[in-house]
Amino acid sequence: MAASLDTLLAALRDGLGDRHVVTDPEDMAPYLVESRKLFTGSALAVLRPGSTEEVAFAVRACTQAGVAVVPLGGNTGLTGAGVPHGGVVLSLERLARLRAVDPVDATITVEAGMILQEVQAAADAAGMLFPLSYASRGSARIGGGISTNAGGIAVLAYGNARDLVLGLEVVLADGRVWNGLKALRKDNAGYDLKQLFIGSEGTLGIVTAAVLKLFPKPRTTGVAFVGLDSARAALDLFVFLRSRLDRDLTAFEYLPPFALEIVLRHVPGTVRPLADPHGAYALIEAASARPDADARAGLEAALSDAMADGLIADAAIGASGAQDDALWRLREGVPEAQTREGASIKHDVSVPLSRLPDFLEQAEDACIAVMPGLRPCGFGHFGDGNIHFNLTQPAEMPPADFLAEWGRFNRIVHDIVHGLGGSIAAEHGVGLIKRDELERYGDPVGLDLMRRLKGAIDPLNLLNPGKVIALRPDS
Amino acid sequence: MAASLDTLLAALRDGLGDRHVVTDPEDMAPYLVESRKLFTGSALAVLRPGSTEEVAFAVRACTQAGVAVVPLGGNTGLTGAGVPHGGVVLSLERLARLRAVDPVDATITVEAGMILQEVQAAADAAGMLFPLSYASRGSARIGGGISTNAGGIAVLAYGNARDLVLGLEVVLADGRVWNGLKALRKDNAGYDLKQLFIGSEGTLGIVTAAVLKLFPKPRTTGVAFVGLDSARAALDLFVFLRSRLDRDLTAFEYLPPFALEIVLRHVPGTVRPLADPHGAYALIEAASARPDADARAGLEAALSDAMADGLIADAAIGASGAQDDALWRLREGVPEAQTREGASIKHDVSVPLSRLPDFLEQAEDACIAVMPGLRPCGFGHFGDGNIHFNLTQPAEMPPADFLAEWGRFNRIVHDIVHGLGGSIAAEHGVGLIKRDELERYGDPVGLDLMRRLKGAIDPLNLLNPGKVIALRPDS
Repeated sequence: MAASLDTLLAALRDGLGDRHVVTDPEDMAPYLVESRKLFTGSALAVLRPGSTEEVAFAVRACTQAGVAVVPLGGNTGLTGAGVPHGGVVLSLERLARLRAVDPVDATITVEAGMILQEVQAAADAAGMLFPLSYASRGSARIGGGISTNAGGIAVLAYGNARDLVLGLEVVLADGRVWNGLKALRKDNAGYDLKQLFIGSEGTLGIVTAAVLKLFPKPRTTGVAFVGLDSARAALDLFVFLRSRLDRDLTAFEYLPPFALEIVLRHVPGTVRPLADPHGAYALIEAASARPDADARAGLEAALSDAMADGLIADAAIGASGAQDDALWRLREGVPEAQTREGASIKHDVSVPLSRLPDFLEQAEDACIAVMPGLRPCGFGHFGDGNIHFNLTQPAEMPPADFLAEWGRFNRIVHDIVHGLGGSIAAEHGVGLIKRDELERYGDPVGLDLMRRLKGAIDPLNLLNPGKVIALRPDS
Repeated sequence: MAASLDTLLAALRDGLGDRHVVTDPEDMAPYLVESRKLFTGSALAVLRPGSTEEVAFAVRACTQAGVAVVPLGGNTGLTGAGVPHGGVVLSLERLARLRAVDPVDATITVEAGMILQEVQAAADAAGMLFPLSYASRGSARIGGGISTNAGGIAVLAYGNARDLVLGLEVVLADGRVWNGLKALRKDNAGYDLKQLFIGSEGTLGIVTAAVLKLFPKPRTTGVAFVGLDSARAALDLFVFLRSRLDRDLTAFEYLPPFALEIVLRHVPGTVRPLADPHGAYALIEAASARPDADARAGLEAALSDAMADGLIADAAIGASGAQDDALWRLREGVPEAQTREGASIKHDVSVPLSRLPDFLEQAEDACIAVMPGLRPCGFGHFGDGNIHFNLTQPAEMPPADFLAEWGRFNRIVHDIVHGLGGSIAAEHGVGLIKRDELERYGDPVGLDLMRRLKGAIDPLNLLNPGKVIALRPDS
């Protein structure tokens, strides 16, 4: 194996250039550790191909040699999906060209390594909106967003990454290139193969390029921060606003009182938005691309009616872009505030919208019951039924002692989610961190189908092996 | 085989009841012929299971006996996907219950055999909209719409059937039931298996139930019939209206002058909408669910500005629901008018939006060049890039002589579509009628992936065999 490994590395250096076959441990290190440092991996080399052909060449060379390939984008994932255990890391960072943008087709064609924020900027420069967005947009790469079917802050109006993809170019396990770079709104010419690769976290193929949907740019926006009696009141308000604003409702984010308090405590420049404390809060955004619409006035009128109906207790509406940003900062500051407040045990879960209040109530009660002093911080994309149900440690507990209970709280929270017909992996994916949880809660027939797909498309199990699903349940 | 067949039929009669194992030739006949009568099949029996468990039982019994199963919904498909060649027909007609409707979750859970129009009505009764709609809605069954990823008249605003499905229940080739009936807006717990079964025309599994998305009901609607200089002007107008109306633009349908003329000639009650003739026409709809919006006024203002900019030549705007319906009738009457005008050779194709004018020009010229007197009638879902590029026979030609040229015109039209990066099967699917065309134009790597999927999920090739893709390219 050592000799054949040398042969492989020599061939890769020939094909990709010496500089792009990284084997120096110091240079490799940043590619081997996951963003939250929960997992550290090891690899024979890090490959940095510069074109689709080079990706295909590298994958073919590796898989012919029986060497696993772990694709990596911006390394901002939260599940360990990009952490190698042997094999090579294949970084898409150099495959980062804007191939085309077409405002008539309302499409943009990008290579997988393009930074998400640069995709947004290229769309903006063409007078259009690319709506996919999340906190790591400045370093996340679009191929990773597609491979994990990323969610984020614009799902309510525009859908998940899956909904934004019209076409894909994918390198398969045997190094062949599937050219599915279509820019079509309707295409029923056979199975919709791109769906296989979206959200499968690099286990079925390596996305090298994509055709993505663009939308008219919003011309007006309104943002409000609302005080509510409870999560149940938040649900009532959401249903009211959906009916009232329809697709102009672009965000409905939820914060429990604890989340607001730690943001105000830890995040510089944040200001208390409402005079009195409330049982729950929502950050609400409306937007419209119609030149004759005024999204702020529309939101204000709707909230005024909601208040008259007793649906909300108090509301602050941004009067300018700067004020809107300040309100958003209260929501976007939650992860940072959590980190500063102590250790967190995290869950990224979803339930049917109507079950959100039940979920929050049951999960908070169950977690506090086993560890008094624990501070639940379930916040996030309420309008999508998606809560980041994080648990902040009791104030005086050593962080390591708290984190040692990760599995125990997973069991409590995921049992409740499962019982409510929800998902234990809503928007971040499965990767390593939830692979065994998926095995536990997944439909057995569905798990068998997943194994069949993996076996049919990557029969040697060399593409990101061991992520999402183990080829044998006991392995 | 005869003995084992008798054994199978006896077992099926035991399990489903005598009345639901149809073998009388007269009773079977309606299940064996395709709606346009292009294909007639044969089958051992027609099965009518009444529950998911009975579907599973029937499939298990048949596939264990090596007997193929062809699922059938409302038998309104246009590609021969439901036509059996031996084996049994499995009709979903009795699996037709509304399981649940939830206006808070904005979901409806239906069995596959529910008539599309009844799904729409159930959503409406709950104060919501189920937007999937097409001409055969009074007899098409929802399972067929999902299995073919049906398009129709609401795709511009709401997407294809695929975009409306949150969860599925599917009976697999071995009779196991995959329970994927989730009502979640975000779910990344493993591969998105439902995507496999949407649009695969019953070749990978039999959809027995689905959770579908609902939307706020439009409160105001506006409809206009517009005269334009050309298809290129239609594209300019579409881009203008998309930017102006954003998601309030719910339909942008195209008619060439010939289509309008034959509708006025053949469809009773239709009235010429504009005084002068034009080079092209568009049927445009705007709608809004926002109580403070007036979709008709918004459409009128936008068209007035478009006229001032020289984008359109003339427009008629409906002043009432009845007038709106009359304008829609001009578009919806096209298929009927074509039938009355003579024989048609049909193509259901899509291209990137920006290439629509090129496609129409090239395809019309190329077809007329080989058969002077031929009358091209490319009409339909312009805003989706989807044209039903139909060819009406020369007035004096015997229909059979014209229809004998079907393959020749397919080659001309599909070559142009392929050259423009389009799809030869936009919304109706592949079935039998385009299987060999898909083999010709499909990406070879993609075709191989399709075969691998089919082989992995239906290894004995007993679910709707021979449709969409042959398991071996030469079979």
